Amino acid sequence: MAISMLSTLSINGDRFLTSIATLAKIGQLPNGGVERIAYSPEDVQARQLVKQWMLEADMQVKIDAAGNIIGRYGASHDDQPAIVTGSHLDTVPNAGHYDGAYGVLAGLEVVRTLKENDIKLKHPLEVIVFTDEEGSMIGCKALTGNLNPDPDSYHPVAGTIQTCLEKIGGDWHQLAQAKRDRHELAAFVELHVEQGPVLESASIQIGVVEGVVGQRRYTISVQGRASHAGTTPMSMRQDALVAAAQVVLSVNRLANLTGNQVATVGKMLVSPNAPNTIPAFVEMSLDIRDLSDQTLDTLIESLECDLKNIAATTQTQISLQPALRNKPALASQAIQTAIAQTCQELELTYLHLPSRAGHDAQEMAKLAEMGMIFVPSQNGLSHSESEYTSPEHCVQGANVLLHTLLKLDRQ
Amino acid sequence: MAISMLSTLSINGDRFLTSIATLAKIGQLPNGGVERIAYSPEDVQARQLVKQWMLEADMQVKIDAAGNIIGRYGASHDDQPAIVTGSHLDTVPNAGHYDGAYGVLAGLEVVRTLKENDIKLKHPLEVIVFTDEEGSMIGCKALTGNLNPDPDSYHPVAGTIQTCLEKIGGDWHQLAQAKRDRHELAAFVELHVEQGPVLESASIQIGVVEGVVGQRRYTISVQGRASHAGTTPMSMRQDALVAAAQVVLSVNRLANLTGNQVATVGKMLVSPNAPNTIPAFVEMSLDIRDLSDQTLDTLIESLECDLKNIAATTQTQISLQPALRNKPALASQAIQTAIAQTCQELELTYLHLPSRAGHDAQEMAKLAEMGMIFVPSQNGLSHSESEYTSPEHCVQGANVLLHTLLKLDRQ
Repeated sequence: MAISMLSTLSINGDRFLTSIATLAKIGQLPNGGVERIAYSPEDVQARQLVKQWMLEADMQVKIDAAGNIIGRYGASHDDQPAIVTGSHLDTVPNAGHYDGAYGVLAGLEVVRTLKENDIKLKHPLEVIVFTDEEGSMIGCKALTGNLNPDPDSYHPVAGTIQTCLEKIGGDWHQLAQAKRDRHELAAFVELHVEQGPVLESASIQIGVVEGVVGQRRYTISVQGRASHAGTTPMSMRQDALVAAAQVVLSVNRLANLTGNQVATVGKMLVSPNAPNTIPAFVEMSLDIRDLSDQTLDTLIESLECDLKNIAATTQTQISLQPALRNKPALASQAIQTAIAQTCQELELTYLHLPSRAGHDAQEMAKLAEMGMIFVPSQNGLSHSESEYTSPEHCVQGANVLLHTLLKLDRQ
Repeated sequence: MAISMLSTLSINGDRFLTSIATLAKIGQLPNGGVERIAYSPEDVQARQLVKQWMLEADMQVKIDAAGNIIGRYGASHDDQPAIVTGSHLDTVPNAGHYDGAYGVLAGLEVVRTLKENDIKLKHPLEVIVFTDEEGSMIGCKALTGNLNPDPDSYHPVAGTIQTCLEKIGGDWHQLAQAKRDRHELAAFVELHVEQGPVLESASIQIGVVEGVVGQRRYTISVQGRASHAGTTPMSMRQDALVAAAQVVLSVNRLANLTGNQVATVGKMLVSPNAPNTIPAFVEMSLDIRDLSDQTLDTLIESLECDLKNIAATTQTQISLQPALRNKPALASQAIQTAIAQTCQELELTYLHLPSRAGHDAQEMAKLAEMGMIFVPSQNGLSHSESEYTSPEHCVQGANVLLHTLLKLDRQ
């Protein structure tokens, strides 16, 4: 097929939307949501269906030791490194139809479209179903060789990591063999629902992801002194909640400075938590995210300075303990450009934005040039039965994936 | 006895301290504390012992329908209104030796001292053990006729209010008969441990109480909107905890303005309370206390104004619901003067201060001129096994009570 003909190629929207709806029946909840916890019978059933669909689309299908399903659509030059797309089929409890499944089925639909048009790419095209994205991310981490080798560090909902991997055709003892080399992959592109409100609120059709933000979690503890809420004069208090309130506002102030960082105190426990007693102890979670590790460093430095001042003025002791640290994963400029050009060609509006949720793509960025395409999420909702992306946006995203992959194949 | 001899009269410190120690054995805890929940076997046993001691001190003892023990020491003019002192024997869980018991035993010790010195006052002297001060305050409220007539509004730890009153010699159906008339009482003076840090921190021996503060309780609710802590930009959040933190600091700021008011957010519950989710809902308690009802009105008006601003700037909804309202009970100027003069004569340092904890005296102020005497609490602690007042301070307080009552008798 000539390039001029390729430019008018389009996925089969009805077939694609039917696939999404069919898959959503596996693990369907009475409230309309979906639940397919990794390694559950529903997860296993969804994987079997998608594997079957891959085979029907003339793909070679392999399950690696981490249980990743790797569907490969042959190329005109099969010795070339693969262009890879994919996402996950597992969900959080009480999830929606789109998170993960959308990206997997779009990759499958791209292959179906290529196949029915007798198109072979120069590069093999792989569609990967990554294992347990919502939990350990063992699937993508096995591909990059960044696994935690301690089986007790994995906490699947039921059973051990060994028995769980067996259920989906993996093998804990062979995990090292799942690792891929950089020269095997030309690029990785993941299509996903935004899971946030940015595209919808700006009435934009496509998000060109700049990268997956770095995320850090901390536990902040404030130690004051319990005393009687009546008999203790204001000047003699060491109120841990008054100090904690200042911490919450310091975090909020720092996050609202220029930039795209976000910072959240989502959890707070007060002790003894009685109306009649001045709070003695408060424990809080802090979650901060940004595309720039340096921005996160600066934010934490500023916060530490504020914490010292708050502790001094409230006569409390405040500690900041790190709990989690994921580095940012930047998207390739070339892939961002390919996505943006595709949008222009398809006459779709687009916006560059960071992904502030985690994705398999953040791990795959260690192995290949990485890019992500977002479509709008209604009300920014995700991890909820109310998660929704319109059929129109679903189809637009899949066509952007198709043409981005075609563009990358020619580069 | 001539007045000149009365002025050198002193209670028997050893006997008084022994009584405190003996009573503290009833309900003694392994940690050294005391637990005598109202109507419990320990409460009943303590009441029996004190009643026995009253009888041994030549007092007439009556148990009224509310279970109050009223010990009466006869007067030279027995038709005069009574001068009344007293406090309570019941405790909170895991309490100390002094809260309540100290005031009851000091009243008893005053009578023992009068009796062994063959002194009759012009007025009958009553020592009252009030029922359930730490809970319903049914004892003092029965005397003033301010009872809640609904038996289901009482929540004793075990049984019903009817069966509980029976255990201590009271009678729910005769409660109205416990009411006293104003002309029966000349004055009410309660001696109590401060339960706060003011006297100790100022190295003052005696507190002359200006009144028992009014107390109001509210529930403050903040309704925001839950969303993903990663994918929701700072500008699109309705973070209930950020709003709640501003509420905590507004309360603290208003309480720290000129004046003696105290205000406390002691309890806070965050929902859904997860590190990864922007808080949707926060519920807080607010407790405010001051001697002036007008000051409390002004504080709440200012807070309501702040809440409106906070709700507007954080895009949340904030409500303030009243939960409790006790009016201030001012101490009589004449009794405050009598206490202060007594301190001068006994060469004890003293300080005028409010009582910010509740006491039987706040109810008795509706029936008679009321006064309270405080002695220091070590580290301001109360409602704790670590509650402690030194023997020296205990004896000083009882002597101030003795001479204040003598002074009031002559007025």
